[in-house]
Amino acid sequence: MKGFAMLGIGKTGWIEKKNPECGPLDAICRPIAVAPCTSDVHTVWEGAIGDRHDMILGHEAVGEVVEVGKLVKDFKVGDMVMVPAITPDWNSVEAQAGFQMHSGGMLAGWKFSNFKDGVFGDYFHVNDADGNLALLPEGMDPAAACMIADMVPTGFHGVELADVQFGDRVAVIGIGPVGLMAVAGAAIRGASHIYAVGSRPNCAQVAKEYGATDIINYRQGDIVEQILEKTKGKGVDRVVIAGGNVDTLAQAITMLKPGGKVGNINYLGEGDYIKIPRSEWGCGMGHKYIVGGLMPGGRLRMEKLASLVETHRLDPSKLITHAFEGFENMEKALMLMKDKPKDLIKPVVTIKW
Amino acid sequence: MKGFAMLGIGKTGWIEKKNPECGPLDAICRPIAVAPCTSDVHTVWEGAIGDRHDMILGHEAVGEVVEVGKLVKDFKVGDMVMVPAITPDWNSVEAQAGFQMHSGGMLAGWKFSNFKDGVFGDYFHVNDADGNLALLPEGMDPAAACMIADMVPTGFHGVELADVQFGDRVAVIGIGPVGLMAVAGAAIRGASHIYAVGSRPNCAQVAKEYGATDIINYRQGDIVEQILEKTKGKGVDRVVIAGGNVDTLAQAITMLKPGGKVGNINYLGEGDYIKIPRSEWGCGMGHKYIVGGLMPGGRLRMEKLASLVETHRLDPSKLITHAFEGFENMEKALMLMKDKPKDLIKPVVTIKW
Amino acid sequence: MKGFAMLGIGKTGWIEKKNPECGPLDAICRPIAVAPCTSDVHTVWEGAIGDRHDMILGHEAVGEVVEVGKLVKDFKVGDMVMVPAITPDWNSVEAQAGFQMHSGGMLAGWKFSNFKDGVFGDYFHVNDADGNLALLPEGMDPAAACMIADMVPTGFHGVELADVQFGDRVAVIGIGPVGLMAVAGAAIRGASHIYAVGSRPNCAQVAKEYGATDIINYRQGDIVEQILEKTKGKGVDRVVIAGGNVDTLAQAITMLKPGGKVGNINYLGEGDYIKIPRSEWGCGMGHKYIVGGLMPGGRLRMEKLASLVETHRLDPSKLITHAFEGFENMEKALMLMKDKPKDLIKPVVTIKW
Amino acid sequence: MKGFAMLGIGKTGWIEKKNPECGPLDAICRPIAVAPCTSDVHTVWEGAIGDRHDMILGHEAVGEVVEVGKLVKDFKVGDMVMVPAITPDWNSVEAQAGFQMHSGGMLAGWKFSNFKDGVFGDYFHVNDADGNLALLPEGMDPAAACMIADMVPTGFHGVELADVQFGDRVAVIGIGPVGLMAVAGAAIRGASHIYAVGSRPNCAQVAKEYGATDIINYRQGDIVEQILEKTKGKGVDRVVIAGGNVDTLAQAITMLKPGGKVGNINYLGEGDYIKIPRSEWGCGMGHKYIVGGLMPGGRLRMEKLASLVETHRLDPSKLITHAFEGFENMEKALMLMKDKPKDLIKPVVTIKW
Repeated sequence: MKGFAMLGIGKTGWIEKKNPECGPLDAICRPIAVAPCTSDVHTVWEGAIGDRHDMILGHEAVGEVVEVGKLVKDFKVGDMVMVPAITPDWNSVEAQAGFQMHSGGMLAGWKFSNFKDGVFGDYFHVNDADGNLALLPEGMDPAAACMIADMVPTGFHGVELADVQFGDRVAVIGIGPVGLMAVAGAAIRGASHIYAVGSRPNCAQVAKEYGATDIINYRQGDIVEQILEKTKGKGVDRVVIAGGNVDTLAQAITMLKPGGKVGNINYLGEGDYIKIPRSEWGCGMGHKYIVGGLMPGGRLRMEKLASLVETHRLDPSKLITHAFEGFENMEKALMLMKDKPKDLIKPVVTIKW
Repeated sequence: MKGFAMLGIGKTGWIEKKNPECGPLDAICRPIAVAPCTSDVHTVWEGAIGDRHDMILGHEAVGEVVEVGKLVKDFKVGDMVMVPAITPDWNSVEAQAGFQMHSGGMLAGWKFSNFKDGVFGDYFHVNDADGNLALLPEGMDPAAACMIADMVPTGFHGVELADVQFGDRVAVIGIGPVGLMAVAGAAIRGASHIYAVGSRPNCAQVAKEYGATDIINYRQGDIVEQILEKTKGKGVDRVVIAGGNVDTLAQAITMLKPGGKVGNINYLGEGDYIKIPRSEWGCGMGHKYIVGGLMPGGRLRMEKLASLVETHRLDPSKLITHAFEGFENMEKALMLMKDKPKDLIKPVVTIKW
Repeated sequence: MKGFAMLGIGKTGWIEKKNPECGPLDAICRPIAVAPCTSDVHTVWEGAIGDRHDMILGHEAVGEVVEVGKLVKDFKVGDMVMVPAITPDWNSVEAQAGFQMHSGGMLAGWKFSNFKDGVFGDYFHVNDADGNLALLPEGMDPAAACMIADMVPTGFHGVELADVQFGDRVAVIGIGPVGLMAVAGAAIRGASHIYAVGSRPNCAQVAKEYGATDIINYRQGDIVEQILEKTKGKGVDRVVIAGGNVDTLAQAITMLKPGGKVGNINYLGEGDYIKIPRSEWGCGMGHKYIVGGLMPGGRLRMEKLASLVETHRLDPSKLITHAFEGFENMEKALMLMKDKPKDLIKPVVTIKW
Repeated sequence: MKGFAMLGIGKTGWIEKKNPECGPLDAICRPIAVAPCTSDVHTVWEGAIGDRHDMILGHEAVGEVVEVGKLVKDFKVGDMVMVPAITPDWNSVEAQAGFQMHSGGMLAGWKFSNFKDGVFGDYFHVNDADGNLALLPEGMDPAAACMIADMVPTGFHGVELADVQFGDRVAVIGIGPVGLMAVAGAAIRGASHIYAVGSRPNCAQVAKEYGATDIINYRQGDIVEQILEKTKGKGVDRVVIAGGNVDTLAQAITMLKPGGKVGNINYLGEGDYIKIPRSEWGCGMGHKYIVGGLMPGGRLRMEKLASLVETHRLDPSKLITHAFEGFENMEKALMLMKDKPKDLIKPVVTIKW
């Protein structure tokens, strides 16, 4: 089979590979809609997960089942399915503890284009089909559904980590596609004021459509000062970090009330340490909660999030600024993510077989 | 001063009373907008809280501060304020345990028209002004804000008790004003499908506007069967009970998945026992969580909920079907709650002094 | 192979059966220590789960692995293992939601001597060996470890459901082996006063050793009155129900503070309804939380609980009043559970092959 | 009146001051047992809270009520009372949000020897007597009870922040008096293995008595390596930080499993930043929860913790290595805390009037 792959750090290209094999619990799928992710860019051009050779890229997909293992009960050949970026080993002790994304080791629930080939091939392999696939709801656009693979669950998980409650003031730092989903998630989880931090006009526009009440442009001054001013010096109840770097947490802590919570969903690829400002953190005693986490993954999560799209609570298609048809456009779509033109939020490629 | 009072069980009328006295932590307010509640009806005509004589009714109000105690720090004469139906003693051990509505005893955070005169008088007394008042946000309509005294916090508390999560299927049983606020709360807390159980057409219409996806009319068949059919036999994740009687919980349990949660916010005035169906409750082992609770009350809660109105997440004014001007209409408004004409959801009386 | 079985309602005996087959994820074990449970008695003599024919009984065991499926990674032939009474399907949507004991349907995580043969045979089958077995810690007595199959996790789950916190006053109703483990669990979860409700002297003695501060004998008066007297009318913070019948919840609710929590771990085999007393439940508004649930099951749980035994936080061997050697004593042990002689808490049978 | 005071940074001495005044909600107490705290040392010799002049020191006390305000309901002159180090304003919005220790601002629930005179005077002032005092249980030793003012609640709060569950492996870094209480708290909250990090032999001995299973001596090698070795490379489930400096969190994160939690209760007086190691924190995605917080304070907390002493779950008197009689020994006791002789854990001064 053919696939679009990382050839080595900094290099991509089409390769030929043997078709994936289907274990008794697994499924093999053809991609119907796929999307490149900033993580793919980090993987290839920054070597974020180390060197990889001839590894097919991609972890966001809607697919069609072409083969299922003997023990698979709930899916059959021909099913149209949503596939989560994170596909846990559900019987691991980590999953039993509620942290399925770390099944088999920290972050090890992330398998596509990490420990095995990703979804940008003629075929891709899904471990534990019953546990990790979800039927594409009838009538749902595969391109929109493709956002449920990673963008929606990651953004929404930020909101869960930050534990947003009715009437909370929430800052969302970063309004790329994941940050925008954090804005949308905060709005439908009960936030009142949502301070969306970003500078790109089209992202700011979409952030407002998803429920941001204020856009905080870091080009127009320190974001902490801007947010403290808007909250009369009191700060916010919750912060979701969906962008920035190892210095962003310090800003989040500074704008946060005692008893507030920070949820980080930004992959931090560089730097030795993330810093907590001692004094603003109450000298270790301010009850400012900090956590960051990989999205949960798995079947139930996909089903739940898809139900929000079905009931029109959430329209993830607003993220899609560049829609391509045909597998051959995979490379073009990935390069968009790399080059980030001004009008880009998220590209998607749909495929007819 | 003058007030509209319960004279005894089944009897109401205008009475003259001495003005309330202001303790060092307290405030005295004039009512600016008030609303009668079904509880007032239960209090007077069903004797729900026992006999009371010459007790001024009402616990839903927006007011103007006319006097404050010496120790009050954050409010002053002339402030326009929201007043919660529940005004806890914040230093009680119950409040310290997180159950301020039960400060001083079960349900004893409810003081207006229960342990003391209510808000349907020329003046009313608020204990612990700093802890229990909240400034009316500039520009907010007092009539709409009056819904934040009881309807919004009660409905939203049902959603909190049921612990609604992203993508949950939620049944809301009862779509009077409190149930409608539970529908609205479920929608902005992340529910997907919301099954609103009721029969009155205007309530059903408003329920849809607040986010109900399905109206379940009990006149058209068993509600459990209807909901199980709509969920393909799987049942719902959460139930908020905002109406019915001591038999309603059995229906809620039956339509609920294992691991599901029921939040009751319906005051149950009659019957010896509420019944849990043994088999549907998994013979005591089905992890179907049950809790019912009085709304939290207090200042922070009002501020948080008001911020949802300010940011247009919630428009409680849709509840108001009958708006009166002038204190003298208090009786008419209360009688509407008693007689429940078809087109009624909630009456409000605004007062100019 | 041979096994001690339920022949039909009210009838037991030794039968011959085909050896169980081992699927790719499964293990086949020989029993090393087994214990009968009151559930076995309910199953046989009360028909609690319906009629069953020639079904081998038993769900509490420590075993030796004699065969493993091809996909099993962490266990091998010869391993000595603890086996939980509840062996979930970990990739089910119910397990993904945190309710693995209801995987595949309410209570359906319970498979031994329910949907398949139990552990009282020459061999028994364990589904998902990696997810459901745990190595017997070196040096741990198999008979004591056998208590970790059901007694410890069930009792401790009651404490978790009741959500015991530092300094809570806790009532444990019922001090059979499960109730005793609830007493022990409450003590090592931070309870202060533990009111253990029971009448049998040996159980009362062991309850004290496990941390009960007060024994409440229902033969000496109403248990609610006794507990209210001991708490100066304030009631308890938490109740664990580990005995009684459908009327016991009403007692629990009555002795509970507002904001308190009841955790039920008693299988209720009879009666149509469990009753909540309306008034004592605050007319539906007293924030008295009610939940009952089957023990979690699975590997991690066993490992965690075993670590409490290893570190001498818990000594489950105090439960064992009758220790037998030899498979042939299975029947005698079960009859003890049925006849409940005065000095019985729990019998165990150890087997040498 | 007379009091032992901070005269300025680095200077202490006896001063004369006007007696404190009693507001309507307050109480004035005489000290019966008091203890100096490391915080007092930081306050005086490190200027941790800035400069203060003629401020009476001390925040750990058991006292006798000598005056109560007019609105005080539950205490009267002559009552023997426990006094928490943290005395919140219970009607503040922070307390309403569950963070009473930050009432009026971050850490501002700490008033004694911070915003007002402390307890090392002839008399001391307690704000909100009903909310912040607790009766000394009959028969309880005032010296032991004095440990409930700060040592017990701080140590136990670390255990709550780290959210210890049944069978968790817990590291407690630092085994001064607060760390020892964290060890004790972890043991009675259900931890199995408790790795207590410290080097002083008498503290190590007491740590074992309180439930530590392993003493990790930092003088004998890197503590992370030692703990990883003891956990076969898997790390611990929970860490309580009760000592060290701004670099300690990095160690805690490194020894922690994904999904693990760190609770910090160590006041960090120096350094600009606390550092989270990026890679060990899963590049921001490892679900390693971090929080630090000041002890809760208030009446209910004291009552709950005292009930653990009453029921013999906890014996805080093991902390007391140096017991003095007579107010005049206050200085000697404080100097012990400053000089930390080898055999010191905690000094207490009892006073007869």
